[in-house]
Amino acid sequence: MHILEIIDKKKKGRSLTQEEIYYVVNGYTQGKIPDYQISALLMAIYFKGMNEEETRMLTMAMVESGDQIDLSSIKGVKVDKHSTGGVGDKVSLIVIPLVASLGIPVAKMSGRGLGHTGGTIDKLESIDGFNISLTMEKFIDNVNQYGMAIVGQTGDLTPADKKLYALRDVTATVDSVPLIASSIMSKKIASGSDAIVLDVKVGNGAFMKTLEEARVLAQAMVSIGKGLGRNTVAVLTNMNEPLGREVGNANEVREAIAALKGEGSEDLINVSVTIASYMAVLGKAFDSLEDAKKAILENIADGSALTKLETLVKIQGGNPDQILHPETLPTAAISVPVISEKDGYVHEIRAQEIGTAAMLLGAGRETKEDIIDYAAGISLEKKVGDKVSKGDILCTLLTNRENYQDAYDKALDAYEVNEEEAEIIPFILDVIS
Amino acid sequence: MHILEIIDKKKKGRSLTQEEIYYVVNGYTQGKIPDYQISALLMAIYFKGMNEEETRMLTMAMVESGDQIDLSSIKGVKVDKHSTGGVGDKVSLIVIPLVASLGIPVAKMSGRGLGHTGGTIDKLESIDGFNISLTMEKFIDNVNQYGMAIVGQTGDLTPADKKLYALRDVTATVDSVPLIASSIMSKKIASGSDAIVLDVKVGNGAFMKTLEEARVLAQAMVSIGKGLGRNTVAVLTNMNEPLGREVGNANEVREAIAALKGEGSEDLINVSVTIASYMAVLGKAFDSLEDAKKAILENIADGSALTKLETLVKIQGGNPDQILHPETLPTAAISVPVISEKDGYVHEIRAQEIGTAAMLLGAGRETKEDIIDYAAGISLEKKVGDKVSKGDILCTLLTNRENYQDAYDKALDAYEVNEEEAEIIPFILDVIS
Repeated sequence: MHILEIIDKKKKGRSLTQEEIYYVVNGYTQGKIPDYQISALLMAIYFKGMNEEETRMLTMAMVESGDQIDLSSIKGVKVDKHSTGGVGDKVSLIVIPLVASLGIPVAKMSGRGLGHTGGTIDKLESIDGFNISLTMEKFIDNVNQYGMAIVGQTGDLTPADKKLYALRDVTATVDSVPLIASSIMSKKIASGSDAIVLDVKVGNGAFMKTLEEARVLAQAMVSIGKGLGRNTVAVLTNMNEPLGREVGNANEVREAIAALKGEGSEDLINVSVTIASYMAVLGKAFDSLEDAKKAILENIADGSALTKLETLVKIQGGNPDQILHPETLPTAAISVPVISEKDGYVHEIRAQEIGTAAMLLGAGRETKEDIIDYAAGISLEKKVGDKVSKGDILCTLLTNRENYQDAYDKALDAYEVNEEEAEIIPFILDVIS
Repeated sequence: MHILEIIDKKKKGRSLTQEEIYYVVNGYTQGKIPDYQISALLMAIYFKGMNEEETRMLTMAMVESGDQIDLSSIKGVKVDKHSTGGVGDKVSLIVIPLVASLGIPVAKMSGRGLGHTGGTIDKLESIDGFNISLTMEKFIDNVNQYGMAIVGQTGDLTPADKKLYALRDVTATVDSVPLIASSIMSKKIASGSDAIVLDVKVGNGAFMKTLEEARVLAQAMVSIGKGLGRNTVAVLTNMNEPLGREVGNANEVREAIAALKGEGSEDLINVSVTIASYMAVLGKAFDSLEDAKKAILENIADGSALTKLETLVKIQGGNPDQILHPETLPTAAISVPVISEKDGYVHEIRAQEIGTAAMLLGAGRETKEDIIDYAAGISLEKKVGDKVSKGDILCTLLTNRENYQDAYDKALDAYEVNEEEAEIIPFILDVIS
C-alpha cells in the first residue's frame, strides 16, 4: 500500500477501502505519513467526497487511534448530546439536570470555548468551587449514584482527529461534510455513550449557513452513528441570533437556572426541552416524544429539574447556594447599554459578532492561554422580531474592562435592523433520525 | 495576504491575482510557506484549473525565482526545442546540426535521463571526450562562431519549479495541465531563447495518452509562450512505439548519424525534419514550411548537415572521427535476440517498457547516482505495422550485463502482437501554433 496511490485513487473519485483508510489514519497519527501528503488527500476528499461506508470507516479509524471511554459499568442507556457550536448555547446546562431528573444516566464530557463560541465547562466554572477534573472512577461513581456527572475531555481521545483537524484548519479543508461528520462523531463514539442527540445549528452564526447544508451534515452524522450501533438523532435549530438572551459565562448560568424554573427566553426553553425529549426517548425512558416532553415540563414545573442542578453542583464541589441565589454569581463592574441608531425591526443578530464582542469584553479566549472573566458578557434586550426605536437599548455589555469600544461597535453592528417586519423563523427547523 | 485565503479562493474556483501567485511561488521557494499548504493548493489547482492568464503568471513567477540566461549577445533569432519525453528520442542530436546548417543559431540546454527516458546530454557523452560543461562565455562564443553549442543545465534556473515539481511528484498532483505547462515553459523561458518548438509526445508511452489531452497541453504551452513574447509551435508526435529503431546511447548516436545521411527509420527522419522545419521558420530563415523543408532535405543530401555534427563534436572536445566511423562508438559485448512467441502484426511497442528494459541493461539511471553504460540499449528489428512470425527476432538487447532476463521479459512484453493487421498512425498527429 502506498499513500501516493491512495491520494490518486481519491482524486479520481474512487472509494477507499477500510485497509487504505486505516493505513492513512494510523500512518499520519504515528508520524509515518507527512503533512503534505495528507493535506493533498484532504483536498481531494473535499472535492470528491466520501460515501457513507468510507465516512463510517474513517470515524472508526479515528476512534481507534486513541483511548475509548468504557461506560459499561453505568446501568441504563447512556445518552450523549452534542452541539455543532452556537453563541449563547447553554443547552447542556439545562438538559443535563432535566434528563437526569427523568432517571436517565447522563455521563457528559464537555469542552472549553475558543474564539466566539463558549464552552459548557467554562460556564460551570463560574460557579464557586465547581470541579470538572474528576477521575474516571469518580465520574462513573457519580453517574451511578446521582444519575449525572460532567468532566472536561479526559484521556487521549481521538488523537488522529486532533492532528487531522489541526491540519485541515491551516489548509482550507475544514468545510467538507464527511470530514466534519467523522470528526464530530469520532469524539462522541470514543466518549462511550450508547445514543447521541445532535444539535445542528443553522444560520449565519453557525458553521452550516443554510438548512440544505445542515441537512446534509446531519444526515451524514446520523448515518455514521447508526452504522456504528449508536442510535442518533439530529435536531436542526435556528442560529440567526444567539440562543436565549445571555452570552457569557455567569450570566448564561443564571439564564439556565431561570429556564429550569420555566422562566426566560422562549427559544432557549423550546430548544432545550426538544433536545431533552429526544434524549429521553433514545434513553428508552419513554416511547413517545410527547410523553417525554410532558414529563420534562412537569419536572420543570415541580422544581425537581432545578434541584438536580443543585445536586450536580454539590457533588462536583461547587457552591449550591449560588443556584438558589444566582445573584451571588460573578457580576461585572461596568454595564454599557448599546443604543439603536434607527427605528425598525430586528431581522438578525449576527451570532458570531456577538460572540466575538463578548470575547473582547473578557468572556472568552482569543488564544488557549487567555483567562476568562466569568462576569463578562452581553445581555440581549432585543431579539429577532422585536420592534425597536432609535434610542432603545439593543443589548447591554457586561465587563470589567474600561476599553469596550470595539465590543460596542461589534455588538451594534451585529443587529440587523430594517424597516419591514421580520419573518419569524421556527426554533426547530428539522429533525433527522 | 494569507495563504489560507489563497487556497480557499482557488478551492472555490476563483482566479488568483498576479500578486497572489507571486506570493505563493516566492513564499514557497524561500521556505516561508510550508509544504502542506502548497500541496493543498496544488490539489485545488488540479480540480479547479488555472486560466491562461494565471498559468502565464505562474510561469513568470517561476522564471523570476532564479537565474535567467541572457542570450542577447548572440545574433539572430534563437530557437529552442523541447520534447515532453520519449523513448528513443534522439531528435535533438539531428535537429541541432540540421538547423545550424541553415545558418540559424542554436544555443541548446539539455538534461540528463532518469528512469525510462534518456537524455540528450548522456547520448552525446557516449562520444569520446565530448564536453557538455561549457562556461556561459564559451557557450555563447561557440554559437556566435560556429552557429551552435550544447550545455547541460547550468546556473540556478527555476528553483521554484524544482521545488514545486518535487512536491507534486509525492502528492499525486503531477497530471494537471496548467502545472505541467508552466513547469515546462518556465524552464524554456529562463533558458533565454526567442522562439520555441515543442515536441509533444502522444500515446501509451508518453505522458499524454490521447490526442485530446495532448492538444489541451500543447495549447496551454503555446498560449504561455506567445503571451510571454516567445513565438511557440507545438508538434504532436506519435509515441505508440519508440522513435526510430535504437534505444540507448551510442546506438542512438549511430542512428542519428544515419538519419543525417538520410538513412534509417522513416518515423525518426519525418519527425526530425518536421521539427527542424518549424525551427527554421520560427528562426525567420524561411517564410514557408515547404521552403524550410526543401532546404533541410538538401542539406541532408549534400552532407552539410552531417558535417555540422562533426563540427559540433570537434568544438566541444569530442572525437569527430567517431562521427565518420560510428562503428568506433562503444559497442556491447553481449547481444541477445528477443524472439516472437506468436504470429501476427505489431500493433504497439510499449515505449515505457522498452525504456525500462534498456535501463535494466545499463543504458539508463534508476537513481541520479547510477553510471550509464553507453554501449547498452535495444535495437528494434520490428516496428509497428510489421508482420511477424513465431521465431522472428522482435528486437535485440545490447548489454555488458550477464543478467538480462528481466530486460528480456520486459522487451518481449512490450510488443503487442495481434492477428489482424495494425492500423497505421501518422508520425505527426497535429500542429498547434
